Amino acid sequence: MRTLIKDVVNKEGQEVELAGYVAVRRDHGKIIFVDLRDRSGILQLVFTPKDKAVYETAIKLRSEWVIKVKGIANKRPANMVNKDIPTGEHEVLVEFLEILSEAKELPFELDEEVNIDTYLDYLPFALRGDKAQSIFRVQAVIVEAFRNFLISEGFVEFQSPKLIGEDAEGGANSFNIEYFGHTAHLAQSPQLYKQIMVGVFERVFAAGNVYRAEKHSTTRHLNEYTSLDFEMGFIKDHTDIMAMENRLIEFIMNEMHKKCAEDFKILKANIPSVPVEIPKMKLREAQEVLEKEYGISCVGEPDLDPSHERSLCEYAQKKWNSDFIFITHFPISKRPFYTYEDEGDPGYAKGFDLLFRGVEITTGAQRIHNYEALVASLKNKKLNPGKFNFYLQAFKYGMPPHGGLGLGLERLTAKLLGLENIKEATLFPRDINRIDNRLSK
Amino acid sequence: MRTLIKDVVNKEGQEVELAGYVAVRRDHGKIIFVDLRDRSGILQLVFTPKDKAVYETAIKLRSEWVIKVKGIANKRPANMVNKDIPTGEHEVLVEFLEILSEAKELPFELDEEVNIDTYLDYLPFALRGDKAQSIFRVQAVIVEAFRNFLISEGFVEFQSPKLIGEDAEGGANSFNIEYFGHTAHLAQSPQLYKQIMVGVFERVFAAGNVYRAEKHSTTRHLNEYTSLDFEMGFIKDHTDIMAMENRLIEFIMNEMHKKCAEDFKILKANIPSVPVEIPKMKLREAQEVLEKEYGISCVGEPDLDPSHERSLCEYAQKKWNSDFIFITHFPISKRPFYTYEDEGDPGYAKGFDLLFRGVEITTGAQRIHNYEALVASLKNKKLNPGKFNFYLQAFKYGMPPHGGLGLGLERLTAKLLGLENIKEATLFPRDINRIDNRLSK
Repeated sequence: MRTLIKDVVNKEGQEVELAGYVAVRRDHGKIIFVDLRDRSGILQLVFTPKDKAVYETAIKLRSEWVIKVKGIANKRPANMVNKDIPTGEHEVLVEFLEILSEAKELPFELDEEVNIDTYLDYLPFALRGDKAQSIFRVQAVIVEAFRNFLISEGFVEFQSPKLIGEDAEGGANSFNIEYFGHTAHLAQSPQLYKQIMVGVFERVFAAGNVYRAEKHSTTRHLNEYTSLDFEMGFIKDHTDIMAMENRLIEFIMNEMHKKCAEDFKILKANIPSVPVEIPKMKLREAQEVLEKEYGISCVGEPDLDPSHERSLCEYAQKKWNSDFIFITHFPISKRPFYTYEDEGDPGYAKGFDLLFRGVEITTGAQRIHNYEALVASLKNKKLNPGKFNFYLQAFKYGMPPHGGLGLGLERLTAKLLGLENIKEATLFPRDINRIDNRLSK
Repeated sequence: MRTLIKDVVNKEGQEVELAGYVAVRRDHGKIIFVDLRDRSGILQLVFTPKDKAVYETAIKLRSEWVIKVKGIANKRPANMVNKDIPTGEHEVLVEFLEILSEAKELPFELDEEVNIDTYLDYLPFALRGDKAQSIFRVQAVIVEAFRNFLISEGFVEFQSPKLIGEDAEGGANSFNIEYFGHTAHLAQSPQLYKQIMVGVFERVFAAGNVYRAEKHSTTRHLNEYTSLDFEMGFIKDHTDIMAMENRLIEFIMNEMHKKCAEDFKILKANIPSVPVEIPKMKLREAQEVLEKEYGISCVGEPDLDPSHERSLCEYAQKKWNSDFIFITHFPISKRPFYTYEDEGDPGYAKGFDLLFRGVEITTGAQRIHNYEALVASLKNKKLNPGKFNFYLQAFKYGMPPHGGLGLGLERLTAKLLGLENIKEATLFPRDINRIDNRLSK
């Protein structure tokens, strides 16, 4: 029966069976030390020449070999204790050793600094490093927290299709698929489906891949990424969505404290505190701040550019001690056809972006729920309502006031953990030059 | 402040604000009754001519109109109680009514029996029926239970890419994507990625879409479906995977009892009991049973066909009182290149299918973990190891004995709920003839 490494501390004096990877082997005179890694931690194994067969095999061990051992769990001598790890007071004196799998010569040491392309070339190996493991453990907990929070708020999860028909929004950014003599597309978001589902369950969420055929490779774009989406009915306006996101983010950060403290330590990252009410500004106010405080002249522009986002986050940090800031009321002309115009501020959307540590991580809004208004908005955007007839049924047969948002999982992960390149926060990143392997030119 | 319908039972004598859909309006002489539906339930509203403005508006109400009301929560007269619903002893006498959204004339009544194509044509509307709502609530709980069970067993969730490069397994069943001058493909499973991830976290799972370019439209195939996948390292053999699935299925069914009892009632379906040890047979034994008990001559065939699966499930039901049966040891020649051959039964795989109520819902196996053996197996299957170099790194740099399985979410949902057509268990089913709308010929 295998014991996990973290549980060895409770088995002092007993025989234990362990299995895992050789992290490193050190020979100290006649004694061989091996740091064994399994999913729960790392532990020192000790081999002495007393048992010749075991010892001879131990000499052969190299990093990343997979082994099974049996031996006695002991306290380490006081001067040998490693205070940096939870199992640092213990070791196992090995009496049985079996090699489950050997490894070839490694391309580099795990956690060694290599350039991003080398890292991506050797991803199946490189992901085993402490840092990469921590990144993707944190990411898994973000997704888990996202779902658990929304389930507790009465949301129902749904499976949103990625394979879509008409490229209804007509963007240049959609991938084409050969579909039995037709051209289908990869979904850029679950937007239209989650609105349909509001008509069914009122409150829904989806976590899944979305696609952008963006022809560039940058540190903040991906061609396939994970979008955390929710949509809810019977709202007053977009501020209900903002309030829900505020509480969601707070919940996620509390889960980080509970489940990922060790990972944040490894990554030297800080878990942000979340204000009870994240500060908010209209775009026009934000632009005035940028002009007044940072000398950036952008008043009247329809959107923020990346440097504006960075400055506004700096401002929110300085003024409200917040890593987060909502920017609301972008011009309706620059927002998608389903966006709800603020009757009290004509020309501007009841919508928002959430900025976090210098980058936009969420776009959300109230949506148009009136059928005739939605058809008019489509026409206004020069889109053909006939192409939206499936979606439009939801509105034809009665739809409550509703809204929602999409949260980019990889961007949130990267900003939370202080990673410079979003590809470090994406398990198997796809870009114009790479799908696992580099694409030939 | 909106009150959910299910909570009205605790608000007797108080004023409540409700919002939802008009399910049905009935005029009884001067009094108008409206059944109001929200995400929590259904409740009777009462309108009397006393307040003329409210009453005149109520007369206009039609099914699927979205409304907000305020009024007093009362007990119904004893002879008016509806014992079939939890809110059947209460009603609200309406004093305020606001129409949030009107609906056009409906194509059919919700929950009316219509043929599957009409149902799919009007899906955004049809999904609002009680039956459809129950199906997809159950499906959401299956996915939630799948994840919660595996997280409790130390598994880590990962986001598996759907956009893949070389169609490495060379199947005819993969969709082509135009990818910046290259041809990419839609993933048929997360198989290769979850094996890579075993090297990182030992135990991983993924729930996401997978794709099969199957050129037929049947009641059991889909071109896009949801696969629930897990993979685990440091196993003894495939029986460890079967034991984990056995407990997973038991956990899911317990969750069904806790969270979906009402949905099963609506769908007139039964939650199966799960044996502590699901019965199992080798394929060859199963074929002998089919011959002896059912007069089906199939001994020596490499696989089971659908009628065999049905008969074996009938047999398992009769002999062991089980809705489930594992069939193990399919010929290695018919299984994918990564399948582990049973040293004790050469020519046959350490793998299994799980059959449930007449249909295969899972395929699982131990996988080859030795690098050289895996390369040899690729060559043996006439596949080019060079095309697998990214994946093969996981094995080159040390891999434990491991295995896993994939569980088809829609098939499990359909069989669990007694649905004849898998499209009823798929929110937005894609087939050769349809992506939301019917495709033109």
